[in-house]
Amino acid sequence: MKVLHTADWHIGKKLHGYELLSDQAYILDQILNIAKEESVDAIIIAGDLYDRSVPSEDSVRLLNQTIAHWNLTEHIPLLAISGNHDSATRLATGAPWFDQSDFHLHTRLEEAFEPIEMGNTQFYLLPYFEPVDARIYFEDPELRTIQAAMPKVIEKLEASFDKNKKQVLVSHFFVAGSSKTDSETKIEVGGLDGINGQLLANFDYVALGHLHGKDALKMDNARYSGSPLKYSLSEKNQAKGVWVIDTETTEFYFRTVAPLYEIEEIQATFEKLLDPDFYLTIDRENYLSILLEDQVVIPNLMNQLRQVYPRIIQVERINGYEAETISRLSQKQLKEKSPIALTEEFFTEVAQSELTNQQKIWIEEGLHSLLKQGGSD
Amino acid sequence: MKVLHTADWHIGKKLHGYELLSDQAYILDQILNIAKEESVDAIIIAGDLYDRSVPSEDSVRLLNQTIAHWNLTEHIPLLAISGNHDSATRLATGAPWFDQSDFHLHTRLEEAFEPIEMGNTQFYLLPYFEPVDARIYFEDPELRTIQAAMPKVIEKLEASFDKNKKQVLVSHFFVAGSSKTDSETKIEVGGLDGINGQLLANFDYVALGHLHGKDALKMDNARYSGSPLKYSLSEKNQAKGVWVIDTETTEFYFRTVAPLYEIEEIQATFEKLLDPDFYLTIDRENYLSILLEDQVVIPNLMNQLRQVYPRIIQVERINGYEAETISRLSQKQLKEKSPIALTEEFFTEVAQSELTNQQKIWIEEGLHSLLKQGGSD
Repeated sequence: MKVLHTADWHIGKKLHGYELLSDQAYILDQILNIAKEESVDAIIIAGDLYDRSVPSEDSVRLLNQTIAHWNLTEHIPLLAISGNHDSATRLATGAPWFDQSDFHLHTRLEEAFEPIEMGNTQFYLLPYFEPVDARIYFEDPELRTIQAAMPKVIEKLEASFDKNKKQVLVSHFFVAGSSKTDSETKIEVGGLDGINGQLLANFDYVALGHLHGKDALKMDNARYSGSPLKYSLSEKNQAKGVWVIDTETTEFYFRTVAPLYEIEEIQATFEKLLDPDFYLTIDRENYLSILLEDQVVIPNLMNQLRQVYPRIIQVERINGYEAETISRLSQKQLKEKSPIALTEEFFTEVAQSELTNQQKIWIEEGLHSLLKQGGSD
Repeated sequence: MKVLHTADWHIGKKLHGYELLSDQAYILDQILNIAKEESVDAIIIAGDLYDRSVPSEDSVRLLNQTIAHWNLTEHIPLLAISGNHDSATRLATGAPWFDQSDFHLHTRLEEAFEPIEMGNTQFYLLPYFEPVDARIYFEDPELRTIQAAMPKVIEKLEASFDKNKKQVLVSHFFVAGSSKTDSETKIEVGGLDGINGQLLANFDYVALGHLHGKDALKMDNARYSGSPLKYSLSEKNQAKGVWVIDTETTEFYFRTVAPLYEIEEIQATFEKLLDPDFYLTIDRENYLSILLEDQVVIPNLMNQLRQVYPRIIQVERINGYEAETISRLSQKQLKEKSPIALTEEFFTEVAQSELTNQQKIWIEEGLHSLLKQGGSD
């Protein structure tokens, strides 16, 4: 049978302060379209459906609508697990009813050991779990790390292998030797660095979640799907998409998706950045990391740039600053500046980079609450 | 057909700082037992399943387990709506799958107009809604209050009445003239006080949620079920339970439930309260409101009482205080007291009543954060 493998949707995640819900809805539609084009028999979602254990109402609405549409309207079987970003308990809401329409969502370790059989394949849905879950399940107080628990888990999974079928493992953890990006939360436990890939040798395919690059791990029989969107600047050159696997031949290939807005790095002087001859040649709507060539302090830099580029995620001064800085201003000049402007210039001077959108929000909130406290003393 | 009517579970609610989850699990079991004894054909849950829009994980687990057990294991059809305490969006998670097993959960106004037909009855499940929902649905900017919207809502519901069937409305709002308790949140909007009961005249039965007393409203064809537990001292004399309705005869009767721990008021002197001859005659595990007859200041009063009575929700001095009070203490005596003890005695002196558990937590947290701030100045 043919299955599509995706993971790490992180619904509700923000990129440097920018809401991504419409980007996420857009990319999920593309995944559905690939599933239909490929006529897959099931879609695997290998954890981290949400970005946080208590997602916003808008995030809940997007996931609920997506999943209901795929499973109940398009009649596509779904095989999903919870990741380390999901609350297993909250995500499990409704799960006992989902099986009826071949939507299998596993959120507890013990559920992994009952394979879901479809066509020629046994699917083992092993959610993210904590060492304490393994200690309780195996009644073994020695299982203090995921690394210690995993051999027992795999052994127990293999005990129900049907030799006449293929076996696919769906899971969400860090396999030793995989390469990371900046948008993943570390889940290494007990000082050991990941699971030994040898443990996975007996599965025909291992559909992994957790790492955000599709090439994070290259084993013959295992892949991370990666996140369907770029969730950090470090992912700017990664191809994003899903794997399509034929469980009979155990061959698989990657299908790319294209985001609503790309993450892009552009380098120029301030003057050039505001010049239509330059900015009309690029996609100004993208999430932009700007490498600024100027050395002079430019007042109100971010606001001026944002009038042309609505989604700036970072401005970096690649040539540093020239010597004239805020610390040389006279007392009179200093007094004429607002607290926010002063803080911004100070940051720029010390950090050698501009404030992001989110950092500005934090500073404004911080100053606001400081000024309020001052007033009541 | 025979239906059971309950509402206002408020899963996750606390009583004066005490967790009620085990009390709630206990009472929900009793409701299930009544449903089985009475062989009802369906259970109505008229809103406020949760106490808050973002319930705790433990609350989510209790509701998920309860509902799955009732509907999937016991095979009892469920007819439920969201109340003003629920997040309609969060509560709706899984709802598109629930219909398959006759669990009908309506959380949006537009869902109300499609009756659920079972046996001889049309059930209209009208969730709690805001005036803005009615303005959007009816495309009428004049619907600024629930009172203004309700005639249009009811008219539209009645348009699909089947004359050969009975009609039951399930809803969650305040009907004018009903009597309130201390544990409900007011939802009157636009300055008007509740919905005109005449609007409900054409339904054979109206299963209401929102008010916590079963006798809050006495109309021939409408009842509040009330909360299944006492959620405030003002409910101490209320019978709690569920209505059982025969939709053919439209007769109904009340079945009471008994809580794990009662709310009770006891009156005595401090000496008597600590005397086994007294306390062995009462149920010390109950949630107690203590009417204290003493007038003298009693150091460490709450801690001493709690060693005998683990669930004190309030201590009230019914005879006031005698003249010797904290304000007469010497500087030396004052300095020997901890900030928490001083605050507690000051409160007692001014408010003429003892601090509750929750109030003590707030004071400890407040003092803790004050002392922390002081240290960093």
